[in-house]
Amino acid sequence: MEDGKLILVGWNRSPYARRVAVSLNYYGISYEQRHQTAWEHFDEVKEINPIVKVPALIIEDGSFITESYAILDYLDCRVGPELSLMPPSSPLRDEVRRIVAIATSVIDKGRELRYEVHLRPEEHCHQPFVDRWSAQITNAISALEDMITKPFAAGEKFTQADVTLGVMYDMIQNMHPELLTVGSYPGLDLKAAKYHSMKEFQQAGLGYD
Amino acid sequence: MEDGKLILVGWNRSPYARRVAVSLNYYGISYEQRHQTAWEHFDEVKEINPIVKVPALIIEDGSFITESYAILDYLDCRVGPELSLMPPSSPLRDEVRRIVAIATSVIDKGRELRYEVHLRPEEHCHQPFVDRWSAQITNAISALEDMITKPFAAGEKFTQADVTLGVMYDMIQNMHPELLTVGSYPGLDLKAAKYHSMKEFQQAGLGYD
Repeated sequence: MEDGKLILVGWNRSPYARRVAVSLNYYGISYEQRHQTAWEHFDEVKEINPIVKVPALIIEDGSFITESYAILDYLDCRVGPELSLMPPSSPLRDEVRRIVAIATSVIDKGRELRYEVHLRPEEHCHQPFVDRWSAQITNAISALEDMITKPFAAGEKFTQADVTLGVMYDMIQNMHPELLTVGSYPGLDLKAAKYHSMKEFQQAGLGYD
Repeated sequence: MEDGKLILVGWNRSPYARRVAVSLNYYGISYEQRHQTAWEHFDEVKEINPIVKVPALIIEDGSFITESYAILDYLDCRVGPELSLMPPSSPLRDEVRRIVAIATSVIDKGRELRYEVHLRPEEHCHQPFVDRWSAQITNAISALEDMITKPFAAGEKFTQADVTLGVMYDMIQNMHPELLTVGSYPGLDLKAAKYHSMKEFQQAGLGYD
């Protein structure tokens, strides 16, 4: 490991890794990224993280942090309350927390849906799960569309609500385009266009060909 | 809603709901609990939470918070840094965060394993997923066993690491007993016995018959 450099283990096709990458970019923290997935690099990831998941962040002392919400908390503490993408106090923290929680839930369900329809043999696919998760995703996306009426997702400034919302939007459009057709949610489309223009997102590209 | 009373929507068989319940008990915050699952009460939960998941916490102004990590952050902010189960600063916060992240990941994989082996028709079960998730769970439990050598999970005092570790232990023992046999992890067994003696856990029983 290059001395003093953080290592983000995880490919940006993982929305969990990508929201860490966008946040690191925003904070201006230098890092190296290992484009690994737990799916394809089970043994290598197991060496770092006993639960064998990405993202994991390896910090300067060689220890790791796993789970994107935990990594983001670590980064927020590291940069301090003034710069943190998670506002330190109510009411803004409440609003950011609410949007982040719904957006991460959409990501969770999008991931389960991907496992169901893409990563298991078709004959083992269970349609009631597909229907259920699709309904949860579309219902939550509609709720988000109604919530994000301000210049940024949670108000007047860029926060973790924007990071997670942007990552969620790109993930669902890429993995489950039928659930988030451009034009169906004009408020989300506008926010996404804004995020796509930002270097923090561009420097943490999705990694699709 | 009874004026000024919080409502926790979710049954304690959900480890995510249960860690909120144990934390509320620890903080001495009075609450009413609705023993609903998103699985069985889809329409009722949808009325409260657009992503249709438990737990959700309905607070005094009628708004909701979803995702257990977000609800716990809300509660930590509510009680303040002195009482919070999440220590406000390093190095204790780092240690608690690490244990909580691994324990919640075990819970996540335990939930996916339950869906795979119990909630879908047997002919739709995909054995490679069962094997993979089981390996992730046992590997992470072994890592936790090696980490929790102090009086409490993360040191000298009771923290969110203990809440989440205790809930994880009970969940895996109840849902996947083959992955956490009593006697296999003596350090975890000892911690679990301590948690089981605490009123905060007893008052948030698992709800099994």
